Amino acid sequence: MPNYHRPSVTVDVVVFGLDDSVGALKVLLIKRGRPGTAFEGCWAIPGGFIEKDEDLEVAARRELREETHAEPSYIEQLATFGRPGRDPRGHVISVAYMALVRCDSLVIQGDDDAKEARWWSVDHLPDLAFDHAEILATALKRLRNKVRWQPVGLDLLPLVFTLSDLQRVYETILGKSLDKRNFRRKVMSYGVLVSAESMRVGSPGRPPSLFRFDREAYEALQEEGVEFEVTA
Amino acid sequence: MPNYHRPSVTVDVVVFGLDDSVGALKVLLIKRGRPGTAFEGCWAIPGGFIEKDEDLEVAARRELREETHAEPSYIEQLATFGRPGRDPRGHVISVAYMALVRCDSLVIQGDDDAKEARWWSVDHLPDLAFDHAEILATALKRLRNKVRWQPVGLDLLPLVFTLSDLQRVYETILGKSLDKRNFRRKVMSYGVLVSAESMRVGSPGRPPSLFRFDREAYEALQEEGVEFEVTA
Repeated sequence: MPNYHRPSVTVDVVVFGLDDSVGALKVLLIKRGRPGTAFEGCWAIPGGFIEKDEDLEVAARRELREETHAEPSYIEQLATFGRPGRDPRGHVISVAYMALVRCDSLVIQGDDDAKEARWWSVDHLPDLAFDHAEILATALKRLRNKVRWQPVGLDLLPLVFTLSDLQRVYETILGKSLDKRNFRRKVMSYGVLVSAESMRVGSPGRPPSLFRFDREAYEALQEEGVEFEVTA
Repeated sequence: MPNYHRPSVTVDVVVFGLDDSVGALKVLLIKRGRPGTAFEGCWAIPGGFIEKDEDLEVAARRELREETHAEPSYIEQLATFGRPGRDPRGHVISVAYMALVRCDSLVIQGDDDAKEARWWSVDHLPDLAFDHAEILATALKRLRNKVRWQPVGLDLLPLVFTLSDLQRVYETILGKSLDKRNFRRKVMSYGVLVSAESMRVGSPGRPPSLFRFDREAYEALQEEGVEFEVTA
């Protein structure tokens, strides 16, 4: 390998979750705990340096697990941030990911380099280390845009949910109310929600009220280029 | 800076252009020329290693200029590729960009690390170095998706164009025919094309046939959340 300049490379993961009790969109932050490091004691997006020959997404999941014990139901690469001066320690490039966690797995715990880990409402955030406010804003924009075309909201819900739960996810992410009838009609028109009614005793003849997501049916739709558009 | 593992970081730029004479979507590739380096003599996406404290997009534009003299009219970050083993030289992460070049600036010339640079039709590509086939496929997918919601096609045209030129851009990128009347009605409905008729002698009373893009008007629309959707 020729002797080119080598920057340091980190992965950072913006994790969203839904606090169903208050209908708020939350983001998982850690308090930087390693003594003597940059921004010690500051709140930040979980993340850290990649290891030798480590895949980027593998590194993102590892850092998230080490610092918060969170296991995302969805993860995608967001963007890579490399503005000169973004890290006081030197030339550090961050490959950022966006992840979602189901609202019944919100229990997290700070560990490793993280003195503390907790969920923050996206509307009331603390000051963040590095350029993490910019990374978080980019992730929020991506989520709000993505939810209009893909059923990412389902990765914030438990595996079995009601249509009211699903509507609340969309309303929380988009920050606006949706018409209940219109929403239900659109959601059901794609044929990707199946009854999960066998999982509890229901009155016979009553329409199903508990659903689960049929990911295979959705993937077939996706291959045909159909978008999951339920909020317009 | 603590002594963490440091990978090498490159920027690679997938540049699309439109060969208007044959209505084909083209991609700019270089023949790797530095003797004794990996994939010497192979075709590849233009790119190279980032320099100390260099901004990522600045590095992408610099490498493109050095190797091909191309000046893109549009550039955006695509994704970052870091699969272990993607580069035989070691742990190399590539931050990939997608760029567009106007069809009246298609003249390029190999230089620096590039023995040769030329445009290839996206339908007839040579074998590519590294994981560049995957990067190119990702860029093509991004372009074809993006053109449905944003006026990126305009960055492939000269600054002054006819509606037929514009329709041909969309048809070439999407690989399908569009209804002329429907296309024109939709395109004009956004109010972002203005007459460029003063630039040549037109018959009085005839509707304008030469247009230019009013980027400010479009940006105002964008802030309102309006999408430039002309192909559905």
